[in-house]
Amino acid sequence: MADIWDVIHSQRACRAFRDDDVDDATIARVLDAATFAPSAENRQPWIFVVVRDPASRKAIGEINQKAWAAGARAYSEARLTPKLLADVEAGVTGGVSAAPIIIVVCADGSAAHEATFGSSLFPAVQNLLLAATAIGLGSALTTLPTTFGDELRTLLALPGHVHPLAVIPLGWPAKRLGPPRRVPFADKTYRDRYGQDWEKGKGIR
Amino acid sequence: MADIWDVIHSQRACRAFRDDDVDDATIARVLDAATFAPSAENRQPWIFVVVRDPASRKAIGEINQKAWAAGARAYSEARLTPKLLADVEAGVTGGVSAAPIIIVVCADGSAAHEATFGSSLFPAVQNLLLAATAIGLGSALTTLPTTFGDELRTLLALPGHVHPLAVIPLGWPAKRLGPPRRVPFADKTYRDRYGQDWEKGKGIR
Repeated sequence: MADIWDVIHSQRACRAFRDDDVDDATIARVLDAATFAPSAENRQPWIFVVVRDPASRKAIGEINQKAWAAGARAYSEARLTPKLLADVEAGVTGGVSAAPIIIVVCADGSAAHEATFGSSLFPAVQNLLLAATAIGLGSALTTLPTTFGDELRTLLALPGHVHPLAVIPLGWPAKRLGPPRRVPFADKTYRDRYGQDWEKGKGIR
Repeated sequence: MADIWDVIHSQRACRAFRDDDVDDATIARVLDAATFAPSAENRQPWIFVVVRDPASRKAIGEINQKAWAAGARAYSEARLTPKLLADVEAGVTGGVSAAPIIIVVCADGSAAHEATFGSSLFPAVQNLLLAATAIGLGSALTTLPTTFGDELRTLLALPGHVHPLAVIPLGWPAKRLGPPRRVPFADKTYRDRYGQDWEKGKGIR
């Protein structure tokens, strides 16, 4: 039992994990929750690869670092605050592969059209993250390693119709996470048409 | 207070709504929950247009029907069970625009790169659907009307950098919804690499 409002408001990226394993029964609860998300035509085109093998986790970490060095760092450097950049960099260069479990969420191209991958997979990913939070697990939604999708494909023996979309480290958090920082919804909400602020004077332009 | 496991396991598409309005305070809870989803670089590139105006809802219904007639029906007819096809068709031709509220979820192209739209928007959509379910509201994730994105753009006065990705009817359900039907996660889960079943003999090939 966990209150959904508390879980939604506390779910956030974890980038440092304890060494302790996450057992199969706990992973099962998280993946079961993922499958209750909606998908186009209810086709459920998700495939999960649960990586516990240390060599494979290390290899995913290396793919991640390669993608970071190949351009993602330069792109982020100009855009993120120094603190967020340092957090993300720590996750990329150590945290993700240091998690005891990495779940690679893939789209099954034999079950669904590519145009529906985003709307059919990321709701399941969010259920997964919320379920992890409800259990007290740390997690993070990352997509950076998928930019080297062919290397992930080789590592995980994915057939051609299986496309990795998200890479989620999962484990017990090394430290207590602070609250997520968000812009109030009213700053990004309009009534009936763009430009008519939800609360007068609040909308972005 | 609502148990997250109950909510996750009961959230499903609603396609028939009562006439009763949904008040602003309730919509605010749902949208606030949406904004607590993760997004690439925490850029929060979502924009919500809350449509209550009857003429605009009717126009969205017409766009939906046009997209359905233009090809979606023919595509679905061969793929869905007759019962699911009838449900979807009822939603397309009446249910969506009959909801007292339609929330159009858009990506802000000035805040995020197009490649991140799916991973940054659909987690927020899922939070929105779960929050609605926790309150007792019916909702559905639809993307069909976005295939006529230019018509939505004109109707809602969206600037060029604002891209509609999802159209979510919201209202009090006209009838009690049954449980969602899902394939067990173990049928779609592998250990360490594709082909190594989570439970022996369970994986798809």
